[in-house]
Amino acid sequence: MPKSDPNPLSEFDLIARFFSPPAAQGFVGVGDDCGIMPVRPGFQLAVSTDTLIEGRHFFSDADPADIGHKALAVNLSDLAAAGAQPRACLLSLSLPHADESWLQAFSQGFLSLANESGCQLIGGDTTRSHDKIILGVTVLGEVPVSQALLRGRAQPDDDIWVTGQLGAPHTALQLRQGVWAADEALLAQTLPRLLRPQPPVHWAPELLGHAHAAIDISDGLIQDLQHILHDSQFGARVEAAAIPQHPALTHLSAEQQLEAVLSGGDEFELCFTAPVAQRAHILDSAAKAGVAVQRIGTITLEPTLQILDFEGKALNAEPTGFDHFNRS
Amino acid sequence: MPKSDPNPLSEFDLIARFFSPPAAQGFVGVGDDCGIMPVRPGFQLAVSTDTLIEGRHFFSDADPADIGHKALAVNLSDLAAAGAQPRACLLSLSLPHADESWLQAFSQGFLSLANESGCQLIGGDTTRSHDKIILGVTVLGEVPVSQALLRGRAQPDDDIWVTGQLGAPHTALQLRQGVWAADEALLAQTLPRLLRPQPPVHWAPELLGHAHAAIDISDGLIQDLQHILHDSQFGARVEAAAIPQHPALTHLSAEQQLEAVLSGGDEFELCFTAPVAQRAHILDSAAKAGVAVQRIGTITLEPTLQILDFEGKALNAEPTGFDHFNRS
Repeated sequence: MPKSDPNPLSEFDLIARFFSPPAAQGFVGVGDDCGIMPVRPGFQLAVSTDTLIEGRHFFSDADPADIGHKALAVNLSDLAAAGAQPRACLLSLSLPHADESWLQAFSQGFLSLANESGCQLIGGDTTRSHDKIILGVTVLGEVPVSQALLRGRAQPDDDIWVTGQLGAPHTALQLRQGVWAADEALLAQTLPRLLRPQPPVHWAPELLGHAHAAIDISDGLIQDLQHILHDSQFGARVEAAAIPQHPALTHLSAEQQLEAVLSGGDEFELCFTAPVAQRAHILDSAAKAGVAVQRIGTITLEPTLQILDFEGKALNAEPTGFDHFNRS
Repeated sequence: MPKSDPNPLSEFDLIARFFSPPAAQGFVGVGDDCGIMPVRPGFQLAVSTDTLIEGRHFFSDADPADIGHKALAVNLSDLAAAGAQPRACLLSLSLPHADESWLQAFSQGFLSLANESGCQLIGGDTTRSHDKIILGVTVLGEVPVSQALLRGRAQPDDDIWVTGQLGAPHTALQLRQGVWAADEALLAQTLPRLLRPQPPVHWAPELLGHAHAAIDISDGLIQDLQHILHDSQFGARVEAAAIPQHPALTHLSAEQQLEAVLSGGDEFELCFTAPVAQRAHILDSAAKAGVAVQRIGTITLEPTLQILDFEGKALNAEPTGFDHFNRS
C-alpha cells in the first residue's frame, strides 16, 4: 500500500549510504535476505528486541545521534542482563520521510556504539511510517551454554546489587515534561543520562558463574526487582539509603529522590543478585572494569518486598514502575 | 513518556495470556531479558526482521488472525530465501490500546504458523503506539556453515526458477484500492493470497547445495531478480509467458497480467537460480514437497535484463517494483 514520495533518496541508496558497515569474518551483513552470524561451539544465542517510538521513547527534537545511540543501548542492556556478549544487531527503520542529515547523524550514533560494543550490524529493513519515527532494534549475543543469567535464579540471602548511579533519567523526564518545577541546571546535569544510557555491556559477562539472577532497570528498580522476586518466588528487603544516587539529585526533596531511584525508568543499569561469598570478587572485577556497583539489599525466603526509606522506616506503598498499557 | 490508560489489561498480563507458549528443550522463552536459542555445531545463525505498519502493510479492518499469520510469514520468507530452517522468533507489538479479542485472534494466527514452521516464540516487547498498529517480527534460523543461499551467487547459464503462481496479491491490492475496476469475484479469488502468504519454508533448505542464488519476491519479481543480477554482476533473459500465473488472472487484460506477475509485490514466493544439471533434482524434490516450481529464464554473462512479453517481444521499459521511499 505505497504512496509516491517526491524524495529522491531511495530505500536502497539509503541502506547503502548510511547502514552498510563492512561485514566481519564469518558474518553476512546488510543487503541480503538474512544476516548470517556464527555461534561458537559451547555457546548459545541470546537475543532481544525493543521498539522505540518517537514521542514515547525519545523526544521528536532530540539529536538524531543520541536517538541512534539510545536505540541500540536499550537493547544492549538486555544482553548485559543475560550476561551475554554482543555480537550482531538488526535495525528496522520506519520513517515518515527519508531526511539525509537526520539519517547521517542517526547512523553515526548507532554505529559508533555498535562498533564499541563489538556488535556487527547484519540486517534490518526500512519502511515508510505515517507520521512518527519508529525504530526496531534486535541484538544478538553469545553466552556459554546454560550459563545465561535469568530472572528466576535468585536464592535466599543473596545480596541485591545495582550498577551505576540511579535517578537521573527520571529527574530529567519529570523536568522536561513540566511535572517537576523547572530547574535548568538540574536538567542539564541529568539529561545526558536519559539521552545516552551506558549499560555495563563489557563487564556483564564477568557475572557469569558469580551472580544468580539479573535484570536491567528499564521500568524502575522496584518494578524490575519484582520480576526477579516473582520468577524466583522469594522476597527482598531493600534499603533506599544504600541505593547509589546520581549526585545532582541532592537538589531534590527526599520524596522526589525516593521516587527517582525506586520507580524511575530508563536507567539501563543492572540489578542482580549474588551469594554473599561473591562480594569480594564482584567488587574487584567491577573496579577493574570501571563499573560502579553497590549492594542495596538482600533476597529473603519470605516472599514479600520490604522497602526501607532514607530514615530506615518501612514504606507502606510499593512504588510502581512503568507498564506500557496500565499505569497507576 | 507514558500516558495513563483506562484499559485494565496490563503489558505483563497480555504477554502471559496470549504470547507465552511453552519453551522447547534448550530454549529460554518469553518473559526474560533475552530469549536463548541453541545453534547446532556445523550450523550458523540466519536472522531477518521486518516491520509491518497498519495501513501500509495490512488493512486496518483485516482479520487479526490473518495479520498475525502474515507478520510471521513475510519473515519466514526471508529465512526460506537463505535456505535456512526456522527455529525461533521475536514479536514486537506496538498497539494504540490493548484489545483482548484482537490480541487473541492475532496471537492465534501468529502462533499457529510459528508452530507449523518449527519456530519457537522466545521474546519480544509490547509498547503503546500513538494511533497505528506496528508489528516488528524477527526470525532466527539455522543454516549449515557457509551454505546459505545468497543473492550474489548466480552463475551464467543458471536457470531462473520461481515457486508458486504469481500475480494474485497485486491483483487483490489493485482491486481493493480501486486502481483497477471493481470485480468482486476476482477479488474473492485473489485476496487470500494477499492476506495469507505461504512461503515454501519447509522445502527451501532442500535447495542448499543445488541452487546458487535466491531471493524472496516481496517487492516484485523483476525488482527482486535485479538484486540477484546486481549482486552477482550478471544479466538475465526472462520469458513472461513462462511465469506461472494465478489462474484467476485470465480475467484480466494482458497488460494487467504482465504488471501483476512482473512487478507485483507481496508474493513471498522464491526466485532462485540453479545450474541446468540440477533441473531433475529440483523438479523431483519440489514435487515430493508439494511445491510448484517453474523455470522462467536464464542468467546471462551480458549484464543486462531482457524481458520477453507474452508474445515473445522484448519489453522496452523495465517494470519497477516497490521502493518504500521512492516509487516511480
